[in-house]
Amino acid sequence: MITGKNIIGNLNSAKGTATFKTFNPVENRENPWVFHQATNDEINHAVQLATEAFQQYKNFSGKRKAEFLRAIADEIEAIGEDLMNTYIAESGLPQGRAQGERGRTMVQLRAFADLLEEGSWVEATIDVGQPDKKPMAKPDIRKMLFPIGPVAVFGASNFPLAFSTAGGDTASALAAGCPVIVKGHPLHAATGELVASAILKAAQKTNMPNGVFSNLNSSGIAVGQELVQHPGIKAVGFTGSIAGGTAIYKLASSREVPIPVFAEMGSVNPVVVLPSALKESAHWAKQYALSITNGTGQFCTNPGLILGVKGEAFTKFITALGEEIAQISPTSMLHPTIFKAYEKGVEQVTSSAETTLVGAYNGKAAPNFGAAKVLTVDAEVFLANPVLHHEVFGPYSLVVQCDNDQQLQVVINALQGQLTGTLLGNAKELFEKAGIVDALKEKVGRLILNGVPTGVEVCAAMHHGGPFPSTTNAKYTSVGVSAITRWTRPVAYQNWPLELLPEALQNDNPLKIHRIVDGLHTSNTI
Amino acid sequence: MITGKNIIGNLNSAKGTATFKTFNPVENRENPWVFHQATNDEINHAVQLATEAFQQYKNFSGKRKAEFLRAIADEIEAIGEDLMNTYIAESGLPQGRAQGERGRTMVQLRAFADLLEEGSWVEATIDVGQPDKKPMAKPDIRKMLFPIGPVAVFGASNFPLAFSTAGGDTASALAAGCPVIVKGHPLHAATGELVASAILKAAQKTNMPNGVFSNLNSSGIAVGQELVQHPGIKAVGFTGSIAGGTAIYKLASSREVPIPVFAEMGSVNPVVVLPSALKESAHWAKQYALSITNGTGQFCTNPGLILGVKGEAFTKFITALGEEIAQISPTSMLHPTIFKAYEKGVEQVTSSAETTLVGAYNGKAAPNFGAAKVLTVDAEVFLANPVLHHEVFGPYSLVVQCDNDQQLQVVINALQGQLTGTLLGNAKELFEKAGIVDALKEKVGRLILNGVPTGVEVCAAMHHGGPFPSTTNAKYTSVGVSAITRWTRPVAYQNWPLELLPEALQNDNPLKIHRIVDGLHTSNTI
Repeated sequence: MITGKNIIGNLNSAKGTATFKTFNPVENRENPWVFHQATNDEINHAVQLATEAFQQYKNFSGKRKAEFLRAIADEIEAIGEDLMNTYIAESGLPQGRAQGERGRTMVQLRAFADLLEEGSWVEATIDVGQPDKKPMAKPDIRKMLFPIGPVAVFGASNFPLAFSTAGGDTASALAAGCPVIVKGHPLHAATGELVASAILKAAQKTNMPNGVFSNLNSSGIAVGQELVQHPGIKAVGFTGSIAGGTAIYKLASSREVPIPVFAEMGSVNPVVVLPSALKESAHWAKQYALSITNGTGQFCTNPGLILGVKGEAFTKFITALGEEIAQISPTSMLHPTIFKAYEKGVEQVTSSAETTLVGAYNGKAAPNFGAAKVLTVDAEVFLANPVLHHEVFGPYSLVVQCDNDQQLQVVINALQGQLTGTLLGNAKELFEKAGIVDALKEKVGRLILNGVPTGVEVCAAMHHGGPFPSTTNAKYTSVGVSAITRWTRPVAYQNWPLELLPEALQNDNPLKIHRIVDGLHTSNTI
Repeated sequence: MITGKNIIGNLNSAKGTATFKTFNPVENRENPWVFHQATNDEINHAVQLATEAFQQYKNFSGKRKAEFLRAIADEIEAIGEDLMNTYIAESGLPQGRAQGERGRTMVQLRAFADLLEEGSWVEATIDVGQPDKKPMAKPDIRKMLFPIGPVAVFGASNFPLAFSTAGGDTASALAAGCPVIVKGHPLHAATGELVASAILKAAQKTNMPNGVFSNLNSSGIAVGQELVQHPGIKAVGFTGSIAGGTAIYKLASSREVPIPVFAEMGSVNPVVVLPSALKESAHWAKQYALSITNGTGQFCTNPGLILGVKGEAFTKFITALGEEIAQISPTSMLHPTIFKAYEKGVEQVTSSAETTLVGAYNGKAAPNFGAAKVLTVDAEVFLANPVLHHEVFGPYSLVVQCDNDQQLQVVINALQGQLTGTLLGNAKELFEKAGIVDALKEKVGRLILNGVPTGVEVCAAMHHGGPFPSTTNAKYTSVGVSAITRWTRPVAYQNWPLELLPEALQNDNPLKIHRIVDGLHTSNTI
């Protein structure tokens, strides 16, 4: 049952008078539940509980934190159809996507549990002391990663499960040993409450300290601002727009004690079509029409920019892409405001510069349903119009036609930082056009060959993070187990009694983890 | 021969009219050389050359970059006595320190060369593709660290060699594959020019691209501000004051494209004296008198705060410390402005709160020579006066007397972030007083038992970096080989042709490095 209340540690709380509702975009009407926005008192209470919980939680073993994460996954699964129906009612996304995203959320939680059980993620590094070394004794120094404290996580509009309440940011922060306070996304507050209740159940079943997790409702920006500026909050995770993420980053940087913000923001994910791929125009046109419209284009990895060199073959590809796009029926967007922003974004492009329509769905679309639109533009026009470089969130893409490889490289150099960059072509072309590949690499966090950027595998080697503005910190990923290090910092022990060291740093390596000992990679004892 | 010119890539340059001189604080007179401050044209030219050099330099093998670093060390050694004399004339530091710091600089450069030759530092992580996996193919994903681009390094006043022109920031950035532009510290511009010339020679001998290194002179803040805001600069390294580092951090964060700033700033390095250590009062009093006055107290790890619980034994320690301090003859500070700031800092403490003198050198001191001063204060007074928490740069320390362990912990909780925290005591005390140890750990980057904080070992396990304001980024160290990752970001390759992957990511592991393959730590082939 949805209460509409905040979850502050072990208790429901609804002290405030400001309320809001969520919206069913497919049925184009409000959902029934009424949510109470968190008050400053409630925010302070959540941070206080998190700060107290941190004193215990930070010292829990990997095994114990893994139990908690697995219990969260189990409790979310146990909600069953109710979660799926609520997700659908609040997002307008279809059943298959709801199930897929739930599956991904389970995979994430359990991947971090696996990581904790294995244990090597703490990056234990040991230089054994040499008390007799001449001319001076060499001290014994041992460092590893430790959690930094309570983390504020901002839920994403487009991933009610996998990047929200129990999504990657929450899972990685809890795995690191940090209590989490979620500022739920207002578009899916009921989904958030169901998931938050599951986390709370899991916390109680596995005897986690009160305050290890809280869930705050809010419909505006005030709750988020208050959280980011709270002295008890030590880091922020965010997935969303460039405007939102940048505002949070600036707020966090101007605190008396600045804190790190790991914001994953908009991206246009350029795709470079090389000549050999144009021989498979029909294949790629179909793949890209699907990728552009997947989830009504509401993905941070949506291919918003397709680059190629003018010519008969590229024209043929563009025509094929247009034909495919025209055949794809509109699907619901997340909310009327997001639908309107999509329409406005396309309008801004077409009114700013001379573009040509490649393809669009021309039938009638239901309210809040986004019709795909692909435009094309000359590279010279693209270079002269910064508005064409910005993300249009929705089923949209812009094909940029370049005169030659030199101009293609100029266009890549003019792009902002991106999560991904894709090349369609063969190995010979990658070798011969190394300048283009290298220019693209400087702009992105992930280089994809012969695929679509949508779909981000959850694995250790994934890097989902690129240069600004695709993230505020290009050094970290928000997908995959490496995401855990965002919520940590190293501490070194010098000449510490061996028996009082954390297990990861002890001579006999009781956790049997991988370490760097005297500069050598090893899982041996000392 | 000192020319007083900037070094921009392969050439000397002195386009500007603004000039300055350095100062010999021991002889209390200006040094003869005249330095030309870099103009905006020269800054732009240096960044342009660095940007061009990056295109080549980033792709050089570890072996080739190691040759360059070793050549830099050799060329600096080859300067011989001229470097030592210039260092002494510009810093007022003694011969032994000059030699020691040169030795440390050599150790750093060669440690990074070793790291590059070993090769595992790139954190290669591979998830091998499973094209036949059901229900969906698993893509092949491989990531590693890559250099981010031209780096601006700000030289430190107190380490003319080890944290300046060819210091840890420069060595680690060049090791990562990033060209470096040094904004030399105005107090030791001649030392800087000698070292920069050595780097240039090394670059030419090992065929490095023009612009891989530049050295800019400046006496004010304009050159630094210009550099930090230059779109071509991708990261900043800084060692110095909280005011200077924070200003650079704020400037870098407010750029259109923010860049990371790794600033290592002031620290008071709290020392907690536990009861058992008071049985060795004489020993620790001597050790600490030496540590407080080492280098005239001009170290970021200087012990500026000593905490203990009131009682006969602590009083005895304080008395012994005072007696030791009184016997230590003043030594030169780096510059008259630094000497004056020291005097003013002590004056601010004594005029802000009721403190008692523990010990001071009472004889006559030569101009610019800093006389040690240790004060003591009641914990309650300390807690009520924020000015007492700040660093006084020089041979100064403040002993805070607490009523009991509870108050001691309150004092620790009230401290700002620190590079180090030291405990004097035994294992039994650490175990019994876990609350105190834990509180200290939350504030620092390195925990030291039974030693002094001065002296930072250069090794893989060192962490020289703590919570703000001791650094702007507690996740990174500026000492030890881990410092290299500051100048990098990961890029993942998806379904890339195996033969076109960087060597570190190839199946046969030609570099024989440590990697994470399908979640397992290994140096095997695939």
